Amino acid sequence: MNYTARQLKLVSQLHKVGVDALLITHLPNIRYLCGFTGTAGVLLVSAHSSKPKLTFYTDGRYSRQAADQVQGAKVVIRRKSAFAEALDALKRAKFKSLGFESEHLFYSDYRILSNATRGKLRLKPTSGVVEDLRMIKDADEIERIKAAVLAGSGLFPNALEAIKVGVAENEIAGELEFQARRAGAEGMSFDTIVAAGLRSALPHGRASDQPIPADGFIILDYGVILAGYCSDMTRTIHVGRASRERRRMYDAIREAQLASIEAVRPGREAGEVDEAGRTLLKKAGYGEYFTHSTGHGVGIEVHEQPRLAKGQTRKLLPGMVITIEPGIYIPEEGGVRIEDMVLVTESGHEVLTPTTKDLIEV
Amino acid sequence: MNYTARQLKLVSQLHKVGVDALLITHLPNIRYLCGFTGTAGVLLVSAHSSKPKLTFYTDGRYSRQAADQVQGAKVVIRRKSAFAEALDALKRAKFKSLGFESEHLFYSDYRILSNATRGKLRLKPTSGVVEDLRMIKDADEIERIKAAVLAGSGLFPNALEAIKVGVAENEIAGELEFQARRAGAEGMSFDTIVAAGLRSALPHGRASDQPIPADGFIILDYGVILAGYCSDMTRTIHVGRASRERRRMYDAIREAQLASIEAVRPGREAGEVDEAGRTLLKKAGYGEYFTHSTGHGVGIEVHEQPRLAKGQTRKLLPGMVITIEPGIYIPEEGGVRIEDMVLVTESGHEVLTPTTKDLIEV
Repeated sequence: MNYTARQLKLVSQLHKVGVDALLITHLPNIRYLCGFTGTAGVLLVSAHSSKPKLTFYTDGRYSRQAADQVQGAKVVIRRKSAFAEALDALKRAKFKSLGFESEHLFYSDYRILSNATRGKLRLKPTSGVVEDLRMIKDADEIERIKAAVLAGSGLFPNALEAIKVGVAENEIAGELEFQARRAGAEGMSFDTIVAAGLRSALPHGRASDQPIPADGFIILDYGVILAGYCSDMTRTIHVGRASRERRRMYDAIREAQLASIEAVRPGREAGEVDEAGRTLLKKAGYGEYFTHSTGHGVGIEVHEQPRLAKGQTRKLLPGMVITIEPGIYIPEEGGVRIEDMVLVTESGHEVLTPTTKDLIEV
Repeated sequence: MNYTARQLKLVSQLHKVGVDALLITHLPNIRYLCGFTGTAGVLLVSAHSSKPKLTFYTDGRYSRQAADQVQGAKVVIRRKSAFAEALDALKRAKFKSLGFESEHLFYSDYRILSNATRGKLRLKPTSGVVEDLRMIKDADEIERIKAAVLAGSGLFPNALEAIKVGVAENEIAGELEFQARRAGAEGMSFDTIVAAGLRSALPHGRASDQPIPADGFIILDYGVILAGYCSDMTRTIHVGRASRERRRMYDAIREAQLASIEAVRPGREAGEVDEAGRTLLKKAGYGEYFTHSTGHGVGIEVHEQPRLAKGQTRKLLPGMVITIEPGIYIPEEGGVRIEDMVLVTESGHEVLTPTTKDLIEV
């Protein structure tokens, strides 16, 4: 990973934002900038002198790990808390203005920061400074994301094999997660969704103790974390023979998903990608049942920028990695969703998820 | 679960805190108060009139789930975000002062709240109002916690069986997690720690792709979530025959752990429980290698109040459920930790974790 390049990009962003330094409290942002994967730490990036300076604060539990992992930043270990040590350093700071991550600093910590630096530093709330850098993946990241997507997709046959009438959704999730670990995953990107029968009408039906019924859709939505990067995919299968109406639902969602994928290219607004699929679903009479947005960026976190939702004007750029995942959810009937991960390329897009979208009946 | 009792207790707390209403943004607090288990929502509790009023705001993804789960609160569904809907309601509110959870509201959301209610509501940052209620578990909760602890403990033989020289730590974690799902767990309480050989010297050595070496300690630290409640346990085993020095380390930590458990009773300060084990480790010459605190509360979250650390003056009370988990970590040598969950009873304590603490050599 080219941490130096990322750090330099951040420094030039700080000049644009108009702050001498940025206090980074969001762990995925810290990981992106210096490689630390632990769960406690604060990164201070100052850009006021010609040479940018990064200092990473953590506590004694992570001294060995920080020494092994952190790149391009001085590591400071503190017995108490990383945040307290960073505050001490800020009291001695030579710069005048400090940005903080307003969406990743709790009000209580903001008050502590504000009291500690009163009369000394001008505090400026910032939003998405590091996230905007992370939105455009570099070559190393794209390689890792592709590996995660293939690992995730490779587990789909295991899930299919585990699906039997009467087996609990939880057991299918368990089998997926077990095989994910065997495939080298550090964990799952989010709580695995296995939503069978009427539960498939829940857009967020995480696996439960409900047994697989003899007839109905099953939505499988899961992802793996491999070398720090997330995958995310959804397929919907049917237990028993799908009725004509259910096939119509499935075909509509497949067409909508393909239409949104087709709309992915540099320069397109995120909202247009959403619109492409949504229009088809409306025409097919399912508009009111598509109750969420079309997709989101994926990387170190499973939900990143950009958001692909109605009215979003952010333009797609090469290097973005997004999901395309329209769904139909009919209460007391069932639901379908298909989700791929898609890379925005110079000339258009590349679908990363290789799993078939033909309706599988088990 | 007796949600009514919890809601009434909260209302009387609000009178003490001196606010007419509380905006609750921390999901585990929301779950505790009204039963909702989804991942987006805001709960507003007003206590200004004789009859307390609870309103739960969430978005369209959770309409069915909220209708099924939420107890004692009016449910309001919003297409956009739950927070935005709550703000609209606050603009029309008849009360004068509103508390918010300062440790669970990001600065950016605080600004939005503050702008929306300016000149209308007096905002008051609060800290730990619901957490203080949650610290004392009721009978339903103790039952669920005991079930989670037994389920977690029941997986220990599976982990032992999976441990073989050359097998990756990740695979052992995977086996544990697979068996946890089979035992009905909704998930793990935290990223499973399997830290073998020199990695056992890391207090937070989550499972990696490192193979089990032919000689050395292995720390296994894991927990399951069952019916919404967490378990948390640690055992350290040894691959091959432990040297005399390693047996001395192990015995020291076992003695320290038992001494801290012995100190658990109502009225004791949390810091005294820490001190009891720490003193023994110092006497045995391991004081400098015990680099963290002794334990923490466990419940809906795996880390709750009280903290059992040096100098903590909070008094233990019946109904608290805590971990006791001293450790020794010697860089380039290895580490040991033993952790049980313990219930504070009227007369003293009850150790919930039944797994043996004899040193197991595999």
